[in-house]
Amino acid sequence: MIKALLFDVFGTVVNWRSGVIRDAGLIAKKYKINFDIEEFADKWRAEYQPSMEKIRTGKRDFVKLDILHLENLDKISNKFGLDIISSVDKFWLNKSWHRLPPWSDSREGLLRLKSKFIIGAQSNGNISLIVNMSKISKLYWDVILGSEVVGHYKPEPIAYKKACEKLDLKTEECLMVAAHNDDLKAAANEGLKTAFVLRSKEYGNKQVSDLNPSQDWDYVVNDFHELADKLGCNKEGYF
Amino acid sequence: MIKALLFDVFGTVVNWRSGVIRDAGLIAKKYKINFDIEEFADKWRAEYQPSMEKIRTGKRDFVKLDILHLENLDKISNKFGLDIISSVDKFWLNKSWHRLPPWSDSREGLLRLKSKFIIGAQSNGNISLIVNMSKISKLYWDVILGSEVVGHYKPEPIAYKKACEKLDLKTEECLMVAAHNDDLKAAANEGLKTAFVLRSKEYGNKQVSDLNPSQDWDYVVNDFHELADKLGCNKEGYF
Repeated sequence: MIKALLFDVFGTVVNWRSGVIRDAGLIAKKYKINFDIEEFADKWRAEYQPSMEKIRTGKRDFVKLDILHLENLDKISNKFGLDIISSVDKFWLNKSWHRLPPWSDSREGLLRLKSKFIIGAQSNGNISLIVNMSKISKLYWDVILGSEVVGHYKPEPIAYKKACEKLDLKTEECLMVAAHNDDLKAAANEGLKTAFVLRSKEYGNKQVSDLNPSQDWDYVVNDFHELADKLGCNKEGYF
Repeated sequence: MIKALLFDVFGTVVNWRSGVIRDAGLIAKKYKINFDIEEFADKWRAEYQPSMEKIRTGKRDFVKLDILHLENLDKISNKFGLDIISSVDKFWLNKSWHRLPPWSDSREGLLRLKSKFIIGAQSNGNISLIVNMSKISKLYWDVILGSEVVGHYKPEPIAYKKACEKLDLKTEECLMVAAHNDDLKAAANEGLKTAFVLRSKEYGNKQVSDLNPSQDWDYVVNDFHELADKLGCNKEGYF
């Protein structure tokens, strides 16, 4: 019996690419820098997984994602002419990840799911990132778990295991909800139930990854409303 | 400028005494044990502060409050004839702390405060305890911080400091809300703003402690609605 739903956030709940593009666009305008903003967003995101790898493999102590995002931004700034912006603007741009907009079904869908289950953010984002993002978009988590609470980055197996432990739940009582097959695969290995949500525009119009479930996940849905329907949540939501 | 409100929970948001009495009463009935249930609740609670002291002073590694509650229950069970109950019922009784009812103003008051501020539980209770309690009573935290997230029990100074850090906020941007002067004193020492909420029945009709503010706290109120008024929150709440 499922008691809690644990959500991947970047790409699954929020549209990181459009959020980063929006804020990078404001910086481009302010400084009159001409660069390929979509490419910038993709390149920044491309540094995401490699930057966590040293921590996952124990070569570096845990630091929160805001720090990795800033290091990754520094790494690619020069290529896009962004090395000239002020520190204040750099920190502001780095916090674009705290301001990512949700997919259109996320807010209402989460409310419906909350009516029947504990809903938790199980993201690699740090606590303040998830709090600030959720506050802006009124995403009503019951609990923010994820990397800073469990001390590990997904898809490390212990990241999923510890999240369930924090809720006093068995892994099979938790459903991992993600738009990424590799996230679900790691969660399933620890015994969690799995729900694949198709987010075919996460990487824009040219997306090639995660357009289909790679395995026979417990649930395969097109959005959070379909997941709520399949899990027997009512239409009215939570309040 | 205050950006986040951090709440003590036991006594400040929920009425632990009535919750424990209610569930102990059910156990008494089931086993036909005749004991002073109010005294039992007070004695169990009396073990609370001493049990954390070894952890605060570094003589014992951090363990979550559910474990301390269980040890404390074991310690006093014999005195009340509760040593005869089954393990299942003992664990159920220990989880009475996961089922504590809120004060009558807590839910609506928190919603109003949430409309303007980040609201976080900064309790010595563990994550699952706060999640379960809040789920039952629909207390909509933006974030659950507290002992299990920061790794320290209040009133250790670092417990307050780390909670603010998790939100990327300066201590003076956070308001500690509590019905207990010692909690506020420790928070104020770290630079947090303070709000004293009078909960004159926390210890029942014979309460002698925390009936008045012991210092000139930033806010002194009779309930969460008064706090919301003083902080300029609207009447409509959050949604």
